[in-house]
Amino acid sequence: MQFTSEQRLDDGVIEREFTLGDIPGILWMPAAASASAPVPLILLGPAPLGLRKMYPRLVARAQHSAAEGFATATIELPGSGNRPRWEAAEQARAELRRVMEAGEPVSDEIVDALVLPLVDKAVPEWQAALDALLSLPEIGGPVGYSGGVISIGVRLAVVEPRISAAVLFAGSFVPRAILEEARQVTIPLHVLLQWDDEGNDRQAALDLFDAFGSREKTLHANMGGHTGVPQFAGDEAARFFTRHLS
Amino acid sequence: MQFTSEQRLDDGVIEREFTLGDIPGILWMPAAASASAPVPLILLGPAPLGLRKMYPRLVARAQHSAAEGFATATIELPGSGNRPRWEAAEQARAELRRVMEAGEPVSDEIVDALVLPLVDKAVPEWQAALDALLSLPEIGGPVGYSGGVISIGVRLAVVEPRISAAVLFAGSFVPRAILEEARQVTIPLHVLLQWDDEGNDRQAALDLFDAFGSREKTLHANMGGHTGVPQFAGDEAARFFTRHLS
Repeated sequence: MQFTSEQRLDDGVIEREFTLGDIPGILWMPAAASASAPVPLILLGPAPLGLRKMYPRLVARAQHSAAEGFATATIELPGSGNRPRWEAAEQARAELRRVMEAGEPVSDEIVDALVLPLVDKAVPEWQAALDALLSLPEIGGPVGYSGGVISIGVRLAVVEPRISAAVLFAGSFVPRAILEEARQVTIPLHVLLQWDDEGNDRQAALDLFDAFGSREKTLHANMGGHTGVPQFAGDEAARFFTRHLS
Repeated sequence: MQFTSEQRLDDGVIEREFTLGDIPGILWMPAAASASAPVPLILLGPAPLGLRKMYPRLVARAQHSAAEGFATATIELPGSGNRPRWEAAEQARAELRRVMEAGEPVSDEIVDALVLPLVDKAVPEWQAALDALLSLPEIGGPVGYSGGVISIGVRLAVVEPRISAAVLFAGSFVPRAILEEARQVTIPLHVLLQWDDEGNDRQAALDLFDAFGSREKTLHANMGGHTGVPQFAGDEAARFFTRHLS
């Protein structure tokens, strides 16, 4: 893990860009964190749009989390942002666009091709990032995951024992295999669903929520479209992490 | 409205029993309320079990609300508690029991017979209680509704403009006519659903949530069975009222 830049934001949060091999990432530290007072960590789940396009939303969530005493970090997804183009992923996205523009149903095969290779490739990268982040003296634990491509969150919750709670955003396609994996998830979950998000298969999200094996799982459904998660819903998600990571 | 008893609870909350005609009720006032500092009011939705059986849960919610600066009040449902037996309601309940014990499906007709007469009779009583409560100098407004038999909450939200926000507990049978009325509801709603409540028709609850016309409506689904609403979910419902009634 190589740090490539560092700046102090208005509220004292330290933003540090890094690379992990050839993967770019960003780490945000609360001003008060130090080796003698290490803080819990929230992994800010990936954005297929790329970190640069997502930056305003990511930094807002990072600053909110820093105010609660949490470090946050994120890395670029394979094939996103400035990372090398990934032919298979581009083909899967193109096929999805074609089908949706034609008004055809999105088949299980298209969803599998779109999501499963991404999950297989991204999850080990996130685990490597976690290794590197937890080796920093000012980051302790526990670790939460908050994101993004929900299938990556599901797989991470199953395979990565260092993640002890997760906020998941329903609203992307979920392969059948991931729905099965969800039954093995046992950590506390807080699932956000935008009820009237037209790009979202609401029933698939409800089925996924039902499948999770966790004894504590909460679904918060709100109005406001895909990017319109209300402020109070963000605050509730933050309180979930405060309950489980503090 | 005749007050029949008054006692001060441990935390300073004043509990006053009253009758409104022949309807018994209870009012809880925060210690700090006075004619010069009137407080908002939450109507604690009715309990078919009767006020006495429900008392421990009701007083806990009332004390929680008082700590947030709200008065709370509740009245006995027609045919419940010490109120005169109501033959039609008893017959409808007996028929529901018979059908459920026989493992037969609960028909729309049974649900209508069980719920609609209760809503028709109870809602005007709650409006009369609201008249009386709002005439007390130490109660100002705004008014929230929190309950209970969800169909009563839906009807009240439609016909009673003095109610400006509602917390509704999904988990009782909902007649088709009430599902239609739900489309006319426009106040902010916070709906609690116990996801794994076996006595609850989850799909009916989701359909009802979908039907509400409100621009701000939130569904919080949690684990824990019918009476196992987690503490944090109760806290979130309380914050909903703090956002809308303070």
